[in-house]
Amino acid sequence: MNPAAQASDQVDFIDGKTRLYGIVGDPIEQVRSPEMVTWEMRERGMNAVLVPVHVREADFEQAMASVMNIANLDGLVFTIPFKARAVALAKRLGAQASVVGAINALRRDPDGQWCGEIFDGLGCVEGLRRNGVDLNGRRVMLLGLGGAGTAIAAAIASQHPALIRLHDPDPARLARGVQIVAQLSPGTVIKQGLPRVDSIDVLINASPVGMLDDERLPMPLDQLPASLTVLDAIVKPETTPLLALAERCGCRVVRGREMMRGQIARIVDFMTGLDPNGV
Amino acid sequence: MNPAAQASDQVDFIDGKTRLYGIVGDPIEQVRSPEMVTWEMRERGMNAVLVPVHVREADFEQAMASVMNIANLDGLVFTIPFKARAVALAKRLGAQASVVGAINALRRDPDGQWCGEIFDGLGCVEGLRRNGVDLNGRRVMLLGLGGAGTAIAAAIASQHPALIRLHDPDPARLARGVQIVAQLSPGTVIKQGLPRVDSIDVLINASPVGMLDDERLPMPLDQLPASLTVLDAIVKPETTPLLALAERCGCRVVRGREMMRGQIARIVDFMTGLDPNGV
Repeated sequence: MNPAAQASDQVDFIDGKTRLYGIVGDPIEQVRSPEMVTWEMRERGMNAVLVPVHVREADFEQAMASVMNIANLDGLVFTIPFKARAVALAKRLGAQASVVGAINALRRDPDGQWCGEIFDGLGCVEGLRRNGVDLNGRRVMLLGLGGAGTAIAAAIASQHPALIRLHDPDPARLARGVQIVAQLSPGTVIKQGLPRVDSIDVLINASPVGMLDDERLPMPLDQLPASLTVLDAIVKPETTPLLALAERCGCRVVRGREMMRGQIARIVDFMTGLDPNGV
Repeated sequence: MNPAAQASDQVDFIDGKTRLYGIVGDPIEQVRSPEMVTWEMRERGMNAVLVPVHVREADFEQAMASVMNIANLDGLVFTIPFKARAVALAKRLGAQASVVGAINALRRDPDGQWCGEIFDGLGCVEGLRRNGVDLNGRRVMLLGLGGAGTAIAAAIASQHPALIRLHDPDPARLARGVQIVAQLSPGTVIKQGLPRVDSIDVLINASPVGMLDDERLPMPLDQLPASLTVLDAIVKPETTPLLALAERCGCRVVRGREMMRGQIARIVDFMTGLDPNGV
């Protein structure tokens, strides 16, 4: 950070002026935000690190009260199992968090109040945007309405597509997805029921099917229209069976890692007050 | 830390498995432990960072209760104004901390209990040792018995020198220094009164005289015996007026930064349970 930082008995990535961010979860070892968010912040010239913070479930509320009082800590990211409980920590909620009922990012605003938002879905929109895909006016098929899928439904809806087709085997999840989309984008046509890939522009898999060694496709398929954009929210493997099929069919493909990068960029925008879509 | 860590969208010095250490102070921006302790831990192959933690005075006890509950946090360093208050956080105290009544390092022992010790003086002993100076049986003159000076008196005493000559303009501080040395090393001859440099082997300045732009010497002097070792606890400037004189007179010189390096090595020994002098 300065010439003295090149001395042989000190590292150059942290000092007394470093601003702190944390990712809070239980367990914590599997998280990727420390290396990825810290990279993004450093790319932007910030003297900041995001550290893993392992808080046990029983300690959460009490621990957060003190952690949020650390004067050089400017923001927190939340992961499993805290995304819903963390809502109560925020004095203000973003548009996505308000309808989803969960946050994964919390920042200290200039007036000292804490503001929360969820970026699990906004990262998906950002990953598509970075691949030249604008969802406004398009037709989208979304598979899976768990935690990530519900946030993705909300983020897609905020782009006001022409149509959203939702699928989840759980009727309660499906009903909630329909309600969220209707609330955020009254002009969007909502369809539900069995998944299909005709008459849509963008296919998004937010189900866990295809993760790790799972060789299944998330829906019965042997062909995809080449005009389709296919995004898979799964990060491992990099190329899921669905994405492999999409590549063979000549579709535009957006990987889980691109969605994660998009999310991280949006989280850092949020943490630094650069949040064009407003909170 | 692994080949994947070379990817272009992540840093290689922190991840979900990184163990946390913190330095707690108010203010915090001036501290050097983040870059120096983190460097030392990485040199030893640890996946760990020490981050600055700015806790306001009024929040200290409550904040510490929660911070010490973070499951991947293994140790804390304390600086101004918390060294004395932090004693109450430790279930066990090291030999130095017990007599000095302050700690600057706290670690979580394998049984979950927290153990504290003060290294302000042990760093001085380590800096001398690294320069080939063993205090056992030697004659030492110590100038200044503030917080650092008192810790240095205790650390010197633990090496059982033949004689310690103490000087401080404050009679209460001087009396406490005498009492600490007598307690830790009953066989050491203790002298007090005006500073002198004849009949001693090692001169240690722990007074603030000579810091930054202060061009004074900590005692009236125009010559030093070449046989003397001179240590100045001041870090800035690197060469204080006293050390400049000592160099001109052909003395062995030990700088504040060497003492700081020695302290950091001892703190990391302590944090990792490698503490040969026992706690």
